[in-house]
Amino acid sequence: MGNTLGKIFIVTGFGESHGDCMGAVVDGCPAGLPLSEADIQPEVERRRPGAAGTTERWEPDKVEIISGVYDGHTTGAPICLLSWNKDVDSGVYRKNRFALRPGHADYTAFVKYGGFNDFRGGGRFSGRITLAYVMVGAIAKKLIGRLGIEVFAHTVEIGGIKARAQELTAIRESARKNPLWCADREAAEKMARLIEKAREEKDSLGGIIEGIALNVPVGLGEPVFDNFDGELAEALFAIPAVKGVEFGAGFAVSDMKGSENNDLYDIKDGRIVTRTNNAGGVLGGISTGMPVVVRVAVKPTASIARSQETVDIQKMAKASLTVTGRHDTCIVPRAVPAVEAMMAVIICDFVLQAGLMPRVLS
Amino acid sequence: MGNTLGKIFIVTGFGESHGDCMGAVVDGCPAGLPLSEADIQPEVERRRPGAAGTTERWEPDKVEIISGVYDGHTTGAPICLLSWNKDVDSGVYRKNRFALRPGHADYTAFVKYGGFNDFRGGGRFSGRITLAYVMVGAIAKKLIGRLGIEVFAHTVEIGGIKARAQELTAIRESARKNPLWCADREAAEKMARLIEKAREEKDSLGGIIEGIALNVPVGLGEPVFDNFDGELAEALFAIPAVKGVEFGAGFAVSDMKGSENNDLYDIKDGRIVTRTNNAGGVLGGISTGMPVVVRVAVKPTASIARSQETVDIQKMAKASLTVTGRHDTCIVPRAVPAVEAMMAVIICDFVLQAGLMPRVLS
Amino acid sequence: MGNTLGKIFIVTGFGESHGDCMGAVVDGCPAGLPLSEADIQPEVERRRPGAAGTTERWEPDKVEIISGVYDGHTTGAPICLLSWNKDVDSGVYRKNRFALRPGHADYTAFVKYGGFNDFRGGGRFSGRITLAYVMVGAIAKKLIGRLGIEVFAHTVEIGGIKARAQELTAIRESARKNPLWCADREAAEKMARLIEKAREEKDSLGGIIEGIALNVPVGLGEPVFDNFDGELAEALFAIPAVKGVEFGAGFAVSDMKGSENNDLYDIKDGRIVTRTNNAGGVLGGISTGMPVVVRVAVKPTASIARSQETVDIQKMAKASLTVTGRHDTCIVPRAVPAVEAMMAVIICDFVLQAGLMPRVLS
Amino acid sequence: MGNTLGKIFIVTGFGESHGDCMGAVVDGCPAGLPLSEADIQPEVERRRPGAAGTTERWEPDKVEIISGVYDGHTTGAPICLLSWNKDVDSGVYRKNRFALRPGHADYTAFVKYGGFNDFRGGGRFSGRITLAYVMVGAIAKKLIGRLGIEVFAHTVEIGGIKARAQELTAIRESARKNPLWCADREAAEKMARLIEKAREEKDSLGGIIEGIALNVPVGLGEPVFDNFDGELAEALFAIPAVKGVEFGAGFAVSDMKGSENNDLYDIKDGRIVTRTNNAGGVLGGISTGMPVVVRVAVKPTASIARSQETVDIQKMAKASLTVTGRHDTCIVPRAVPAVEAMMAVIICDFVLQAGLMPRVLS
Repeated sequence: MGNTLGKIFIVTGFGESHGDCMGAVVDGCPAGLPLSEADIQPEVERRRPGAAGTTERWEPDKVEIISGVYDGHTTGAPICLLSWNKDVDSGVYRKNRFALRPGHADYTAFVKYGGFNDFRGGGRFSGRITLAYVMVGAIAKKLIGRLGIEVFAHTVEIGGIKARAQELTAIRESARKNPLWCADREAAEKMARLIEKAREEKDSLGGIIEGIALNVPVGLGEPVFDNFDGELAEALFAIPAVKGVEFGAGFAVSDMKGSENNDLYDIKDGRIVTRTNNAGGVLGGISTGMPVVVRVAVKPTASIARSQETVDIQKMAKASLTVTGRHDTCIVPRAVPAVEAMMAVIICDFVLQAGLMPRVLS
Repeated sequence: MGNTLGKIFIVTGFGESHGDCMGAVVDGCPAGLPLSEADIQPEVERRRPGAAGTTERWEPDKVEIISGVYDGHTTGAPICLLSWNKDVDSGVYRKNRFALRPGHADYTAFVKYGGFNDFRGGGRFSGRITLAYVMVGAIAKKLIGRLGIEVFAHTVEIGGIKARAQELTAIRESARKNPLWCADREAAEKMARLIEKAREEKDSLGGIIEGIALNVPVGLGEPVFDNFDGELAEALFAIPAVKGVEFGAGFAVSDMKGSENNDLYDIKDGRIVTRTNNAGGVLGGISTGMPVVVRVAVKPTASIARSQETVDIQKMAKASLTVTGRHDTCIVPRAVPAVEAMMAVIICDFVLQAGLMPRVLS
Repeated sequence: MGNTLGKIFIVTGFGESHGDCMGAVVDGCPAGLPLSEADIQPEVERRRPGAAGTTERWEPDKVEIISGVYDGHTTGAPICLLSWNKDVDSGVYRKNRFALRPGHADYTAFVKYGGFNDFRGGGRFSGRITLAYVMVGAIAKKLIGRLGIEVFAHTVEIGGIKARAQELTAIRESARKNPLWCADREAAEKMARLIEKAREEKDSLGGIIEGIALNVPVGLGEPVFDNFDGELAEALFAIPAVKGVEFGAGFAVSDMKGSENNDLYDIKDGRIVTRTNNAGGVLGGISTGMPVVVRVAVKPTASIARSQETVDIQKMAKASLTVTGRHDTCIVPRAVPAVEAMMAVIICDFVLQAGLMPRVLS
Repeated sequence: MGNTLGKIFIVTGFGESHGDCMGAVVDGCPAGLPLSEADIQPEVERRRPGAAGTTERWEPDKVEIISGVYDGHTTGAPICLLSWNKDVDSGVYRKNRFALRPGHADYTAFVKYGGFNDFRGGGRFSGRITLAYVMVGAIAKKLIGRLGIEVFAHTVEIGGIKARAQELTAIRESARKNPLWCADREAAEKMARLIEKAREEKDSLGGIIEGIALNVPVGLGEPVFDNFDGELAEALFAIPAVKGVEFGAGFAVSDMKGSENNDLYDIKDGRIVTRTNNAGGVLGGISTGMPVVVRVAVKPTASIARSQETVDIQKMAKASLTVTGRHDTCIVPRAVPAVEAMMAVIICDFVLQAGLMPRVLS
């Protein structure tokens, strides 16, 4: 359990890092959406390694749709998406199977599943599961795009280097111009150098990603428990390595006064807007119609090529471990498409729950 | 929809700030738990106003159990908890009905519910809904207490004033000693003065609450979507005014290296532990057995007694508004029991999902 | 758990036969529906005893709405409905607490809840829980009535006496004319006499109820698991004493040929219809637009005033028991409104899931 | 939506009759269960055609496990099961695409999905979806088998020919001895002749299947809505062609008196049992520990090789249609394994919900 998400647009993931495949089933997609692998592959490509400090594992990540689409359109039946794993090298994982890798889910998974978990490459806990998120997110993006909703994310901080604030529309363009998905070119260059340095030092870096959704209609989200922000947060915590989620002013509200933090209402082009957006597009658990702005904290990659002290869970004895294998020095850029995907999936589900999109598209 | 939470321990809330009552139904509570109003009332009392700068609305908040308990024990049937509203004064809300209060859910609720929402005192969007959370949380706390799990929360920041870090066990005791639930007495005094000052300035303050759970068993939480951290985050975002949630090192991971952030494993008293707890008790979406440490950002009270520019949604015209009524200058301390409650509810549900507690207690 | 039903129109029941009250929370009702107790009370009255052979327990069954309605309209917030129990006489239940009443849930509930279940009057397992169904069903009926959907049920068999088949529209009128809700007056009179005879013989009778829904739009229901028929069946099995559910030709299909059972398509008034309705309005788990016709088998009242051999579960010894208390000789007529209610609730939920009703009514 | 079933043992189906594959994801299977394709293939074989009057489509139905199993055991991660379709011949379906086949879901699916549904061979509405049920059921059977629970089904009626009643244990053995899964050999022979005759007449036959579960623990099922019988009924209605579900005495209760229908309690081998089992193993929505006995009515195959009058939905005009393609004259025997599968899946889910099986097996 725990591998299904959503109420109307329902995603069920499966697959392991070193198993046969990564996959997902999307149930509840309206019928009549033109869809083929060509709609999904580009999103998947954005997630693939390539920038400095990314893994050397080279997977084709070729998406296959094996159900739910006929004659170029979604049929209303569940859509199963698959990507077969090809470049699997599990030897090193077998060798160190019982030495718990610090910062990974080895220990918690071992206890939860009694040691039966597929430990190879982290198995179901690998960052590779975001491949399935991105596949599904591509469908969600296409759906909500029909309502003009646009989702994008960008790197705002890596290793303490912060990107300079910019207009949302500028971000959208600029972020696509470098492999770090950072809209501030200068910051991106510094980040790249820092990543290279960390790689040389056999260390790793964390950062912050900001997700933005434009043209989200007012009224999405269900108070009090299935909040727009709460559901989004839960989905974002499903991305491995995320340790925090904040909306709008976020944690900065602790040092703000009500008179500063309140977003005053105004009328613009006949619509009610707020002059500021400290709320990040959510009030009372419901979308405000202003841009949704959410930031997620991504921890530094747990796999580092240094010797770390740990415990061998089989021997119940201290051990030391140098995590080898193929890893990203900084996972932040590769998590950017995953943030977009999860945002798109949640927004899509809320749109369908609210009855804002017909169940048959034409 | 949106008023039900949980998979086995299922909470359904109802009630409005100025309606007849606040209430909740708890379904899935194991049978045989000794339970009476006396178990719940003390938690409710902790939530009541009293400290400097808290609301003048004076509700008895007397809990009634109207189903699910017989002969002093839970029966396995759903438990309905009620607290009748007594001190309701809705005149001012009627008068300003269409002037959108900045920072409140007036606008989003108006659009979502077509103006039919009960606007009096914020209706279903009032902070008063946390009364129901606290009632339910009292049951959850009692249940998980049987496994030795303990949940407490404390104020770590108000208006920029930070409480000094302390041992978790020291916090538990100290936080109960002042009405701000701040474990650092000096900081608490400064916070109290700042709140008083803000009240005089007709302004309000935000802050940060830290929730802690001790003795949580290893293995709670379902990857990849029904994560321990994700579910907890969603529940915490259900507390009005929460704008961010982080675990362990949280957003600070953006400036940490893997070698700093990784919690190294060790053996202590025959158990596997980590030397540090940057993970905040969660790895891979599963509890680690280390203390769960989560922080939530609480925005400054939206109701401030200053004139604010806004929009009259009926006239679709600019307006100005001074929010009167009875409000807390800083809601942070009164949200502390709500944070505890939501943590207890989620942990209780996971404990039951994991089959760690029998369905009949004895 | 198990007390919540529905995906968008979500019902949560609570209350016990001899507890404080029977109640339910309806979440997901669109905002803007004119609603007061006066909409619900008449449905509740239809369920009250009165006909020959019905219980002597005389409850006022007065409905109270304690949340979710403001200014005469639903607000979009959860609606809590209550009816306080008044005429409770639990002495006899306490006396025979451990002697398992044959045909009742005493044994299963005792085991499931370790003897902590509220056994008085069957507690949560009493037929009295259908009071909550009927309260909620009144709201659902009103909602789907806005789309022209009409739901009614009638008694088609009691104690082997079958009502003569009639046109659906004739049934609607005739069934309301006698307290047995049987559209065939002659059969109704025979049924009444048989019930009286069974009462004298200290025995009880079962029967069959047929539920009908007219003007259900084509396309409700989700294949393959959340079927229109499957969800309806599950909801109908929630009515105590139901032992079977069949649609259209039902069990008679076992002796039909495909050429007899297939409903041939035709065009009538520009709409596609079927000439017969052996399908009972459901094909492939989806509503066909033809009348929904479902029959439920209701077992004879388990409480009979004869001595029955049984077991004392405390002593684990054979015992004999004469069930006293106040009971219906034949529960069938009083289950008729419950059948309607559950049909209305499920249809209402499907209508909302399908996006066929706006979330704000006007 | 609608393709996911279960609360802890969660099944998500996908695939179409003439698409690439039939498949399912099982989430929530405890870790540590020894599992390979060899556990599943025999159940799938039982569902394959072969008896007189079964389809000529010859699919290998070879099961592949593509996730969730490592080193011969389940890992706790979701298990994806696939069977690739090989013998697809869709020409005839394309030709008659718009002529609605009577008794099939063509019309309802066309309306629900706006004509985008994969119509080939019925697409998602084909009886072939039970292949996925049977695959998943094999896992559920293996799991509940560890608690000694045994599920089997048999044909009790075809075309009006009834199998003679027998002891449950005799049924288990005898039913496996003929391709009709009928425990009464003489009846089976008559049924076979009747099927052959119907095939010659280009007609089809319906029937009744009885499902039995032995050694089900007392206490499964959640009142009032997630009943043991209600959930089972819903799952059985997910089998195409099922038009009725009854437990124990079922519809016969309408002609029984309470004194006849009540199952009297007794003590046997220190356990509480009932002398009769009119309840079919369920009281108050909870399993009684007696054998679960459920019967499902299966309609005659809708596809018959005779000319039938119908409507062409594209032209909105009357049409006549002779359904060709490859079909079973009587689907009843091939539905027997599907009945077992759905029973096993639901019982397995309830066992896990009740905490009766550890999440890690050893």
